[in-house]
Amino acid sequence: MSTYKAPLDDIRFVLFDVLHADAAFQRLGFADATRDILDAVMDEGARFCETVLAPLNAVGDQAGCTLDKTSGQVTTPPGFKEAYAEYAAGGWAGLSSPEAFGGQGLPHAAGVPIKEMIDAANLSWGNFPLLSHGATEALLHHGEDWQREAFLRPLVEGRWTGTMCLTEPHCGSDLGLLKTRAEPRDDGSHAITGTKIFITAGEHDFTDNIVHLVLARLPDAPAGSKGISLFVVPKVRVDREGAMGEANAVRCGSLEHKMGIHGSATCVINFDGAQGYLVGQPHKGLMGMFTMMNSARLAVGLQGLGLSDRALQNALRYSRERLQMRALSGPRHPEKAADPIIVHPDVRRMLLTCKSLVEGGRAMAYHSALLLDEAHDADAEARAAADALLGFMTPIVKACLTEWGVECTYHALQCFGGHGYIAEHGMEQLARDARITTLYEGTTGIQALDLLGRKVIQLQGAGLKVMLGMVEAFCTEHAHDERLAPFVGPLQAKAAEWQQLTTHIARAAAGNADEIGAAAYDYLMYSGYVALAYWWARSVAAADASPHADAFKQDKRDTATFYFARILPRTLAHAAAIESGIASLPELDEA
Amino acid sequence: MSTYKAPLDDIRFVLFDVLHADAAFQRLGFADATRDILDAVMDEGARFCETVLAPLNAVGDQAGCTLDKTSGQVTTPPGFKEAYAEYAAGGWAGLSSPEAFGGQGLPHAAGVPIKEMIDAANLSWGNFPLLSHGATEALLHHGEDWQREAFLRPLVEGRWTGTMCLTEPHCGSDLGLLKTRAEPRDDGSHAITGTKIFITAGEHDFTDNIVHLVLARLPDAPAGSKGISLFVVPKVRVDREGAMGEANAVRCGSLEHKMGIHGSATCVINFDGAQGYLVGQPHKGLMGMFTMMNSARLAVGLQGLGLSDRALQNALRYSRERLQMRALSGPRHPEKAADPIIVHPDVRRMLLTCKSLVEGGRAMAYHSALLLDEAHDADAEARAAADALLGFMTPIVKACLTEWGVECTYHALQCFGGHGYIAEHGMEQLARDARITTLYEGTTGIQALDLLGRKVIQLQGAGLKVMLGMVEAFCTEHAHDERLAPFVGPLQAKAAEWQQLTTHIARAAAGNADEIGAAAYDYLMYSGYVALAYWWARSVAAADASPHADAFKQDKRDTATFYFARILPRTLAHAAAIESGIASLPELDEA
Repeated sequence: MSTYKAPLDDIRFVLFDVLHADAAFQRLGFADATRDILDAVMDEGARFCETVLAPLNAVGDQAGCTLDKTSGQVTTPPGFKEAYAEYAAGGWAGLSSPEAFGGQGLPHAAGVPIKEMIDAANLSWGNFPLLSHGATEALLHHGEDWQREAFLRPLVEGRWTGTMCLTEPHCGSDLGLLKTRAEPRDDGSHAITGTKIFITAGEHDFTDNIVHLVLARLPDAPAGSKGISLFVVPKVRVDREGAMGEANAVRCGSLEHKMGIHGSATCVINFDGAQGYLVGQPHKGLMGMFTMMNSARLAVGLQGLGLSDRALQNALRYSRERLQMRALSGPRHPEKAADPIIVHPDVRRMLLTCKSLVEGGRAMAYHSALLLDEAHDADAEARAAADALLGFMTPIVKACLTEWGVECTYHALQCFGGHGYIAEHGMEQLARDARITTLYEGTTGIQALDLLGRKVIQLQGAGLKVMLGMVEAFCTEHAHDERLAPFVGPLQAKAAEWQQLTTHIARAAAGNADEIGAAAYDYLMYSGYVALAYWWARSVAAADASPHADAFKQDKRDTATFYFARILPRTLAHAAAIESGIASLPELDEA
Repeated sequence: MSTYKAPLDDIRFVLFDVLHADAAFQRLGFADATRDILDAVMDEGARFCETVLAPLNAVGDQAGCTLDKTSGQVTTPPGFKEAYAEYAAGGWAGLSSPEAFGGQGLPHAAGVPIKEMIDAANLSWGNFPLLSHGATEALLHHGEDWQREAFLRPLVEGRWTGTMCLTEPHCGSDLGLLKTRAEPRDDGSHAITGTKIFITAGEHDFTDNIVHLVLARLPDAPAGSKGISLFVVPKVRVDREGAMGEANAVRCGSLEHKMGIHGSATCVINFDGAQGYLVGQPHKGLMGMFTMMNSARLAVGLQGLGLSDRALQNALRYSRERLQMRALSGPRHPEKAADPIIVHPDVRRMLLTCKSLVEGGRAMAYHSALLLDEAHDADAEARAAADALLGFMTPIVKACLTEWGVECTYHALQCFGGHGYIAEHGMEQLARDARITTLYEGTTGIQALDLLGRKVIQLQGAGLKVMLGMVEAFCTEHAHDERLAPFVGPLQAKAAEWQQLTTHIARAAAGNADEIGAAAYDYLMYSGYVALAYWWARSVAAADASPHADAFKQDKRDTATFYFARILPRTLAHAAAIESGIASLPELDEA
């Protein structure tokens, strides 16, 4: 079975030594978010994840969720419900929610380590509270006062959970095609009718109500994506005073049989004239969804990060225990029957690939979470810059950290050899669970189009400019630092190339919009690798400037060296693909 | 559910237009292997795979194999046993085995399309007859006359199946550590005692006997890999006249719970003083194993190829059916609710990645199979060249085609979006099944060490020289062919770089043997991509010279263009990693 230990040392290094998040929180007005409080929250979060959630990870995979077709009730795996009760009682559901609605009022970036730990400990379980956050944000920013009191407070307090009901059988990426209908009723509510699929945590036994946020069409809706409205549709009816009434016409029709995340309930939800209330303006529902997308996409990126870290931890342990063959340069441990496989350079290559992607990825992801908070900065210029950079980085964090999650769980399993393929070691579960993350909340291809089509081309590279400015400032600051020379020079060269490739694509796209699609994936991955090079260079500088032990500093330096030598060159292949353009993507028979 | 259609057109193109296998077979003395016979064999094989095996693929995944702990008997999934009876009755078990023992006497390369089709149709089922081939070869080359009559004939006729019992709990890649004992008995047989794990098809209900080829130590065995002997140990005792007697002390202790290939029985086999017979010389068992490794490794490479092709076929179908969003350059199918996703360049990128790896990989793999036949050429020089090239290409074919199998099943699943993660579409099974292929029969890391350490450094690049000679001959032949210029120039440059990188590594390794391990994986993948560039250039030339329709020729040219522009540049990243050497692979704590 795979084990999990929360990487608190590296989490603190990223938050406090690299990002100086404690100072940022004070500047942003989060008076309670002191270093002491944050440390205590993380210690307690780590305990909960290590001792309560992690032991349930294999249980969830084996038992899965079950649906009683007669009652439409879903039973979650043994222990899941009790773990949720502890989570809600601990106030975790509202960690980053406003105190006015019962939350803890901590910054987003303070909640991110907890999210990473939950995902690493038990991704399937973590998916139950995950979408509450999206529902919370939708109601907070777009709901009426009574909706906030009636629905938001129980979500923040963890008494209910939330879902996001977007996908239908015939429409996933293309929400403009959706068919679910909303008919106005005399009492101001709407009757919602339609079938939604892939609804994470759509039904469960954790709480006595579930708040569905549902996209549907009003009778007078224009066709396409401009005719979609957002509704709040509870599982059990709720009146305008927040009192629960009878069951609503909302029913789980079936559970999907999936490759992984067996402990998560992925539901078909049928709405059969269910009572719902319009949230925000008619026909503007998609805009409401977009506002919560940044945090939801960052959250899925964190899932990739958490799974990668857990996979790496287990691969490191196994590579130290497993004795097999001698080092080619001569026995390292002659007293043993063979050397531990960690001595073999190729095993180190796999481990260091994971290590460099996990630790660098953590800095990148946590920084983006901090941007979520900085997007509410009092200073308008700082706010605009943070918002632009957040929009630019969100698809990169989501897509790269999940693609790397698939890669890291692959390498970690590979370190186990044939044993990795056997269920009892738990590595294959991590690989199966990781596989969902590049699909849901927008596939990698969708993230790539968001990045290149919207954030770069449409918004004229505002976010990229902020990013390149940050890189340039760092390089200038350390231009004469010999210890950073191995990183600053290559980083500067890559930043210049990044700009050139962007200009190249923008020119090509002006002539043929399909050039955007032809470059999008490679541009996304290229951007992720260059961004990670920046975060690695900054991590080395931060470690050197920190009070950490020399071994810690050397470890950061070694991992950065590996990253620059062996991972960053992947940008060469991506750049070549970008430059080849649409001409190298011949059309295929369409019928 | 995923479907499968045998790609007979492309198989014939590779065999006859690219490789001219029919002419080669005649030259090598396989008089029966005429084009007519081969066509008939492939048609019948395709029918069997499409109509008998493919429909059982999902069945095998869902039902799995079950073990009766009391009797030690394994029950295979519904339909598997009947499919095997049809396979045996059709003479497929002995397709490439000598007629003297009841086989069809066809060349190895004639059996390869059948193997690919079986693997694509039903990998789990294909694993039952797969290892018979290894047992057949071990007995053919190293067995005594009576052993060949007693054990080989039933294997060739498909009345029994075979296994290879190498791995033990504490030793996989490092067979020198194995502990299974063989005690001599007065009657000339040996008592075999020990536990073997990961034994594919170690127990089943297809046949009334199973022939285990077992590695074990004689009492006077030297330590390490030079003290390992090979034994034939039947499930039911067999006397020297071939008559079956009572049950042998061989028992399936348990079945592994695996990520995929649920329909395959992966067994723990306990030998408790079982009657076995020495095959070949004492202490030379590992050499016996090595002789059959080329064909077994090529066979696993074909598994990667078959799964990739099936995944691609289904992704192509889905990408034509699934309507989602409009092409960025404007609607292509305005009469539909949205355009089929195959119009989106990023979907084409994924499909063409698979297509270029599958079709190019097929040429590379089939050519290596032809080398197995040519290694028995009457001409000593041709024989030596074929043998050297086969040894060089085997780890490349095994490792690259299986790594690409993981990649192609990944892309194909990704084309389905969230639907790919759901069991009913069958794509996630292909991804789970593919995951074993980079692990068993030697992990990718082991293949990389075999390639660089043994085939290149130890054998002084004999195989690489043959390969580069072949590339050079092709480039010279087509030096003035303008239509091939986009491929010949880049191929020549890559071939020169391949040679330079090899020299670079050899020099570095002379100073530090760990440089071999540091470069091995990247050298392996680099070699695979350059070899594939050669096969793509040759495929374009072969298509142009063939009687195929213009559309077929253009399709090959388009796919080659994609490959050279978007896949071959991965060599840039691998070359950079190779050049960075052991210095970029810092040591990690070993305890």
